[in-house]
Amino acid sequence: MNSIDRTPDNFFTRLMANRAFEMFVVAVIILSALVVGAKTYPIPAPAVKLLGVLDWVITVIFLLEITIRFIAEPQKRKFFTKAWNVFDSLIVVVSLIPIEDGEMALLGRLIRIFRVLRMVSIIPELRMLLNSLVKALPQLGYVMLLMFIIFYIYAAVGSTLFHDINPELWGDITIALLTLFRVMTFEDWTDVMYETMAVYKLSWFYYLTFIFFTAFAFLNMIIGIVVNVLEEEHARERAEAAEASGEPTMIELQQQLTAIQQQLARLEQKN
Amino acid sequence: MNSIDRTPDNFFTRLMANRAFEMFVVAVIILSALVVGAKTYPIPAPAVKLLGVLDWVITVIFLLEITIRFIAEPQKRKFFTKAWNVFDSLIVVVSLIPIEDGEMALLGRLIRIFRVLRMVSIIPELRMLLNSLVKALPQLGYVMLLMFIIFYIYAAVGSTLFHDINPELWGDITIALLTLFRVMTFEDWTDVMYETMAVYKLSWFYYLTFIFFTAFAFLNMIIGIVVNVLEEEHARERAEAAEASGEPTMIELQQQLTAIQQQLARLEQKN
Amino acid sequence: MNSIDRTPDNFFTRLMANRAFEMFVVAVIILSALVVGAKTYPIPAPAVKLLGVLDWVITVIFLLEITIRFIAEPQKRKFFTKAWNVFDSLIVVVSLIPIEDGEMALLGRLIRIFRVLRMVSIIPELRMLLNSLVKALPQLGYVMLLMFIIFYIYAAVGSTLFHDINPELWGDITIALLTLFRVMTFEDWTDVMYETMAVYKLSWFYYLTFIFFTAFAFLNMIIGIVVNVLEEEHARERAEAAEASGEPTMIELQQQLTAIQQQLARLEQKN
Amino acid sequence: MNSIDRTPDNFFTRLMANRAFEMFVVAVIILSALVVGAKTYPIPAPAVKLLGVLDWVITVIFLLEITIRFIAEPQKRKFFTKAWNVFDSLIVVVSLIPIEDGEMALLGRLIRIFRVLRMVSIIPELRMLLNSLVKALPQLGYVMLLMFIIFYIYAAVGSTLFHDINPELWGDITIALLTLFRVMTFEDWTDVMYETMAVYKLSWFYYLTFIFFTAFAFLNMIIGIVVNVLEEEHARERAEAAEASGEPTMIELQQQLTAIQQQLARLEQKN
Repeated sequence: MNSIDRTPDNFFTRLMANRAFEMFVVAVIILSALVVGAKTYPIPAPAVKLLGVLDWVITVIFLLEITIRFIAEPQKRKFFTKAWNVFDSLIVVVSLIPIEDGEMALLGRLIRIFRVLRMVSIIPELRMLLNSLVKALPQLGYVMLLMFIIFYIYAAVGSTLFHDINPELWGDITIALLTLFRVMTFEDWTDVMYETMAVYKLSWFYYLTFIFFTAFAFLNMIIGIVVNVLEEEHARERAEAAEASGEPTMIELQQQLTAIQQQLARLEQKN
Repeated sequence: MNSIDRTPDNFFTRLMANRAFEMFVVAVIILSALVVGAKTYPIPAPAVKLLGVLDWVITVIFLLEITIRFIAEPQKRKFFTKAWNVFDSLIVVVSLIPIEDGEMALLGRLIRIFRVLRMVSIIPELRMLLNSLVKALPQLGYVMLLMFIIFYIYAAVGSTLFHDINPELWGDITIALLTLFRVMTFEDWTDVMYETMAVYKLSWFYYLTFIFFTAFAFLNMIIGIVVNVLEEEHARERAEAAEASGEPTMIELQQQLTAIQQQLARLEQKN
Repeated sequence: MNSIDRTPDNFFTRLMANRAFEMFVVAVIILSALVVGAKTYPIPAPAVKLLGVLDWVITVIFLLEITIRFIAEPQKRKFFTKAWNVFDSLIVVVSLIPIEDGEMALLGRLIRIFRVLRMVSIIPELRMLLNSLVKALPQLGYVMLLMFIIFYIYAAVGSTLFHDINPELWGDITIALLTLFRVMTFEDWTDVMYETMAVYKLSWFYYLTFIFFTAFAFLNMIIGIVVNVLEEEHARERAEAAEASGEPTMIELQQQLTAIQQQLARLEQKN
Repeated sequence: MNSIDRTPDNFFTRLMANRAFEMFVVAVIILSALVVGAKTYPIPAPAVKLLGVLDWVITVIFLLEITIRFIAEPQKRKFFTKAWNVFDSLIVVVSLIPIEDGEMALLGRLIRIFRVLRMVSIIPELRMLLNSLVKALPQLGYVMLLMFIIFYIYAAVGSTLFHDINPELWGDITIALLTLFRVMTFEDWTDVMYETMAVYKLSWFYYLTFIFFTAFAFLNMIIGIVVNVLEEEHARERAEAAEASGEPTMIELQQQLTAIQQQLARLEQKN
């Protein structure tokens, strides 16, 4: 964008924009995903060695790619303000730390798994999709707060009343929250209920109201999202239609009519 | 609103509108929620004492806050016509009753849990959300009545036919209603069905029609809500568009055209 | 509607339209529902007798009510062309048959349960709701046919391949259809799958594609209904807006403009 | 379409368009479906023989029908470019292969089941429905890719961490993917979770985030489809309304107004 960019930047910028380069990086990410998958199978020793070598090759390619991206960036400071660049760099740097056997080896393997997420950082459509998902979250803020309050109150009541019936389900408020989430997904919720109904005969009221409240709040959340999405779509569509077709607005028609009335008034005065 | 308000009222009214004051009350409510949560864990004796003290401090702050709100209200009579004020006062007053050990202690703890609901009464957005949820309910009135009739008929048939097969599931109409709610949530519904199919081979028809009817009524309910919400949104949008943009209606355009025709008629007569 | 109606008809017609009469019938239906519910509890002998008497009282009231409705109908032949009238008459007539102990007693009790459905035939809003539900069904015809074809093919494949693994789940095509419905509701579907995977290792493909196809077809069905409902709503709204507000259509505006042009042409000729 | 079509073609074309012929083919397909279903029941030897004969009759009828369709096609080359024709021909040809007892017999029976799918190829409404379903799939491409990435990462993490806890659920990445699908359908997911929580106390975080992510992505997918369908419907509706009613557009009204202004200008010049 700047004519005083140094030549190397231009070369790397062109490389970055190259479709073949992007395809190559995607292929390497898929390869890294397959390596991650292969490691979960019981494999013979030579294959393990091969996977280890592949791992290093992938790490080196990722390191090169991120370096190219960094050099291609005209303003170096802006590079690390983009969340995806930070994520990519972190994944690559951590992959460079030599992993020894033991506890750290497991951690090293887990970090390598997150390389698959680089697919999202490379493919623009996926990045956009994730961004739009993340953007939709704050709109749901208050509904989710309300839902959490419902959960918290029921969990507090549950762990107070049912504590002695089954400590594994109602031991403290954290466990009770987990149990209530289970009830919300309808997973063996009647087993939980029948157990407490043996002591408190009316505890079905506790479960039924909880299911009713959460289902209702959840429904409201979904409807909220749908309405939001449709509205945005609608607004975008209208704006497009108005601009693209060059169709006059009602106001323009009214102005034209007023102009005609003025012309007629002038005619009347002349006669 | 009234110029003859006494000075103290104005001070309290200003305090009420103060953002820092609201934040402080929210913080105290969160603290009370944490105290409620902490009590569900097994805690050492000194911590129990500390929680007890915190409990009283919170009760006193709530008492002060509700008193301030009451004084700030210009028309004292109106104060208790607002449901949230009644709820808040009740929670605070009941918290003041000294709880002794025994059965009452449990009740005291349960009531303290509902203090968390004060979050809804303090944060206006949550209050609005809950109001809109409650407003949506009566629209569903007839669908829910129809659903209850379906449930009632099936429960009556179930407890008549399957009574002897498993009294714990079909003993009387209340238990049968609970069992049918379980079937509706698909929770181990096949276990219930296979049990009765061992006696009445065709009882799968009972369950499948029930699932079909309730799913269909439920679907209808959801669609009803969605359509309602979209319509309101639509109406609100149109009203806004019409008002905000100052766009003329078709009727206004027609009136202008009629005026032009009258002008022309006058011209014709003159010539 | 006809001035030569005999006097008794008019009296009964007025009675029919009386709100208090309707309320009374609804109350009797609720009473009959409560009697049905009460019979599912173990009750002492005198109460049984009381319920029996109540039963006969209700039957007589229903008989009277249906007779009044029949007399109030100006064209007797039309009476039985209405489905709800036929249903009501049938329920009442069958209730009149004296039930003896034994097998028939159970049948008698079951038929009495369906009296609760009279609630739908009496309350116009419920009748309308049910009618609109029934009307929505044929629109779904082809999607349901497609879904049945999917079910049938999978059931045929399942009962062919898995017949010997578990005859209780895959014995013949009817049982296999029931098992597939269970899989669709996700009820212990993995138990069914793990059992067949022990023999055919790749049978997870059978279940996953089935779940995918049915979920997809189901989704399509729901979207179909939503779109239909929204469209009807939209059309109804537009028609109302056009009629109620007396707002002119674009065509009317165009006709008016054309009239103005003709007036102007006449003016031009005169000058 | 071509006047030099030979006579036989015209006869077959007319036969093809004949409603009775279509009805007959549909009836034969239903018969073949019933034969397929009947074979899953334990049937006596003579019935087996009858079913075998019926099978051959159906195959012959299908062969005749496909031949007629082929002859009726004016351009023979185009016949096999239609996917449904290829499918139909394949099913018929494979049915012709004599099936002997043993492994092949099972395969033969399975292929006969897919004859039921011919219902879709014959009834145009079902064919259209399936086409629209298939068309909706690519739109979901990126959401499904994102969902698969989420699944893959969680499966890799799961089979790395939980491998030794339960190899049957987390043995390798393929099995872990199946287990995660099970968790997504909420089928006994707490059993899976409690098992791993016994070793890793915080593993509930793994399940809850997974459920959250997949539910959210799934929701997004559904909303995407709904918005798409509604938009298409909307566009179609607008296009129809504009064409069918002959209602003038705003542009046409504006042109007419401009013409009036020109007429008036001429009048002013004359006076």
